[in-house]
Amino acid sequence: MGLENSVLKTAPIDPTTLPGRRVRVAVDQPMILDSGATLGPITIAYQTYGQLNADKTNAILVCHALTGDQFVADRHPITGKAGWWSMVVGAGKPLDTNRYFIICANVLGGCMGSTGPMEVRSDTGRPFGLDFPVITVGDMVRAQKLLIDQLGIEQLFAVIGGSMGGMQALQWASAYPERVYAALPIAASARHSAQNIAFHEVGRQAIMADPDWQGGAYFDGAAKPTRGLAVARMAAHITYLSEPALHRKFGRQLQDRTALSFGFDADFQVESYLRHQGITFVDRFDANSYLYITRAMDYFDLAKDHGGVLAEAFRATKVRFCVMSFTSDWLFPTSESRDLVHALNAVAANVSFVEIESDKGHDAFLLDEPEFHRVLRGFLDGAASHRGLPTSGMD
Amino acid sequence: MGLENSVLKTAPIDPTTLPGRRVRVAVDQPMILDSGATLGPITIAYQTYGQLNADKTNAILVCHALTGDQFVADRHPITGKAGWWSMVVGAGKPLDTNRYFIICANVLGGCMGSTGPMEVRSDTGRPFGLDFPVITVGDMVRAQKLLIDQLGIEQLFAVIGGSMGGMQALQWASAYPERVYAALPIAASARHSAQNIAFHEVGRQAIMADPDWQGGAYFDGAAKPTRGLAVARMAAHITYLSEPALHRKFGRQLQDRTALSFGFDADFQVESYLRHQGITFVDRFDANSYLYITRAMDYFDLAKDHGGVLAEAFRATKVRFCVMSFTSDWLFPTSESRDLVHALNAVAANVSFVEIESDKGHDAFLLDEPEFHRVLRGFLDGAASHRGLPTSGMD
Repeated sequence: MGLENSVLKTAPIDPTTLPGRRVRVAVDQPMILDSGATLGPITIAYQTYGQLNADKTNAILVCHALTGDQFVADRHPITGKAGWWSMVVGAGKPLDTNRYFIICANVLGGCMGSTGPMEVRSDTGRPFGLDFPVITVGDMVRAQKLLIDQLGIEQLFAVIGGSMGGMQALQWASAYPERVYAALPIAASARHSAQNIAFHEVGRQAIMADPDWQGGAYFDGAAKPTRGLAVARMAAHITYLSEPALHRKFGRQLQDRTALSFGFDADFQVESYLRHQGITFVDRFDANSYLYITRAMDYFDLAKDHGGVLAEAFRATKVRFCVMSFTSDWLFPTSESRDLVHALNAVAANVSFVEIESDKGHDAFLLDEPEFHRVLRGFLDGAASHRGLPTSGMD
Repeated sequence: MGLENSVLKTAPIDPTTLPGRRVRVAVDQPMILDSGATLGPITIAYQTYGQLNADKTNAILVCHALTGDQFVADRHPITGKAGWWSMVVGAGKPLDTNRYFIICANVLGGCMGSTGPMEVRSDTGRPFGLDFPVITVGDMVRAQKLLIDQLGIEQLFAVIGGSMGGMQALQWASAYPERVYAALPIAASARHSAQNIAFHEVGRQAIMADPDWQGGAYFDGAAKPTRGLAVARMAAHITYLSEPALHRKFGRQLQDRTALSFGFDADFQVESYLRHQGITFVDRFDANSYLYITRAMDYFDLAKDHGGVLAEAFRATKVRFCVMSFTSDWLFPTSESRDLVHALNAVAANVSFVEIESDKGHDAFLLDEPEFHRVLRGFLDGAASHRGLPTSGMD
C-alpha cells in the first residue's frame, strides 16, 4: 500500500556516464557565488540542436525547470522518453532547429552532468553532498554565461524557459542585458511566493525525514532517500496541475477495480497516477540536487537584488520581452507575470504579454498547447525579423 | 535543518486518560459498517455545552473536521489551547450555550477517545493498528446516531460542521432526515475532489514512508512515525490557507535573521511556521487515525450512493439547509457548495446559500470572520423561531 520497496531500490545515477556535451569552466579561477563562496572548476553538461550560423547570432538558450535537464529534444538517457520540450524544439517547430541553434545546459546544482552535490570532490575523493555551496538562480546563470563565452557567442538571440527556466531568462536579461536580444519568461515570476516556498519546504522536509538521507551523505551504501524524494515529488506534482485538469483526467474514477477496496491501496486513478510520478522520479533525480535547486528558486527575488524595486532590475534595457502565463496556473499565476510586465512598462521596455487560456495548470508550458506554440513562433519570428535572421515565412 | 529529532519524540497519547464524557454503543450487537465489516462495542468520547431543554429540542450536534476533536470550546487537554471553535460556541456566541445544548463527539476512527485504530482490542490485548476496519463518513454518522439515541434526543435542532464536519452534516441530513431539523455544511462538498484525494494520498504516503510506521504496528517501541506525520501535516496545512493569506502573513520575510543563510535552515518565516505546524501536530494526533480519517473523506461521494444523482440524496427532505463557503477556499471551493445547492434546489429543499468574502482560505471557518458568524447566528435564529425555540433577540 506504500511506495513499493523493490521499485524504489534503483541503481544510482552516474552523471559522468551520461551522453552529451560537456565543458569545464571556471578552471583558472573559481566562480564567486552569490553566497560569497567560490566554486571551480565547474563542469557544464549541455545539448545543442541545429547549427550556429557564421555570425553566431542565431543561438537560443533554453533554460530548464526544477526537475528538467539538458535533454530538451533527445530521448532521455535514463527514462527513454522523448525530450521534455520535443513539441517545441525541432525542425519546423516553434524553436525551429532549421534556423536556430538551440543550447540547453543542465543547471549548476543539477544531477545530469553539471557540477552539483553528486560531483566527486577532487580534494576528498567523495561527493560534495551537503558540503556543496548553496547556489542561486544568479549562480546558475553565471555558470551558463561561462558556457556561452566558451561557445564564442557574443549575444544570444533569445533566452527562454518555463517556471525556474523563466526565472533564469529574467536573470539573464537583468544581469547581462547586452548578451540577450530577447527574453521569454514563461509561467514564471520575478520572486518566489510564500506559498511556493511553503510547498518546497514540505518537499525538503520529506527528503530530510527519510533516514536514508543520512544528512545528505548517502553515497556509500545502497540506500538512498528514495521514499522521501518520491513523497516530495508527489506533493510538487499536484501543484503543477490544476483542479479542473485533475477532475477531467481522473475525477473519482477507480483504478483497476469496480468497487472501493476499503483499504489503503490506490483505489482511485489519481492516487495510482501520483504514486507512479513519485516512483519514476527517483530513477532520474538526486535528492540533494532537489534540495539545492528548490532552495535556489526560493531565494529568487529580483526586486530585492535591486533595492526592492523590480523595475530597477531592467532599467534602460534593450531586451525584447515576451511574458507568457496560463489561466489555470496557480503556482505561478498570471498576476505574477502581470507584476513583471508592470515593472517592464515602468522602464519603457519592449514587452509583449500573453495570457494563454488553458485548464492544464502550471505544466501547460510542457504540454500540447497550440495557442502557446503559435505565440512562441510569432514572437520569435518578429524578433528574428528585427535581428535580420530568417523567419518561418522564409522557409 | 530537518524536523528536530528531540522535539518529535513525544509521549504517546493515551486516549483512555483524556477528560470528558464517554458512552459505549453497539454493545448488544455490533454496528455494520459500509464495508460490510462489523464493529462493536464502540466507545464514543464527547463533550457537551449548555443544557438540554425538557423537550430535548434544542440540541446542536457539532461535527469536527479531519484533525479536530470533541473539545470544541474547552481548553484542549493536550495542547492547552482554547477549543477549536470557542469563537463560535459559548454564551452569547452564534452557537449560544444559553439557549442550545451543544454536543460534539470525537469521530469513529479518531484518536481522542472514540474507538479507532489506537483502541486496544479485547481479543488480542493489543491496539487495532491497521486491523481496524476502513470506515466512511457514513459510519462516523452511524456511530453518532447511536450516541444521539442514547441521549434520548429524537430530533437534533441542527447538525453543523466545516470541511469533513460539513460532510457529516450532509450525511446526517441524507441518511436520517427525520432526525435533523437544520443542517449547516460549511466549506464542504458532497464528494471529495480528485485534487483533494491527491493531497491526502501524499500525506498517507509520507506516513507510510516513515520506517517508524512499521506497517501501522508502532505501539510496542518508543518510535512512532512522527516525521512522516509532520510532513503530512505540513503539506495539508498549506491547502488550508490561501496564497493571499500566506503572502499577507509572511510574504518573503526572514525568520530571526537579517540575511539569507545560504543553507537549509528555516530562512523564511513561512518555513518556520510550517515546521512548527508539523512538529506540534504529532503531539496530539495519531498517524493511523490520520490514514483512516483521510480515507473516509476520500470515499465520501453522496451522489454515488444515490445512483449518481446528488439530488436523490435529499429527495422530499424537510431539513432546512444553510450552505456556506468562503471565496478564497481552494480546497473546498464555492463551486462545490453551488453544486450542492443546485441539487437541493432540484428537490425544492429549503436552502440558504451564502458565500463569505474572506482571504483566509479553507481555515476561514475556524477563524475570526465576523460576517460568517453573523450569518450563522441569523440562520440559527430563523430556524429556532420556526422550531419554537428562543432566539437571540429574546435574551
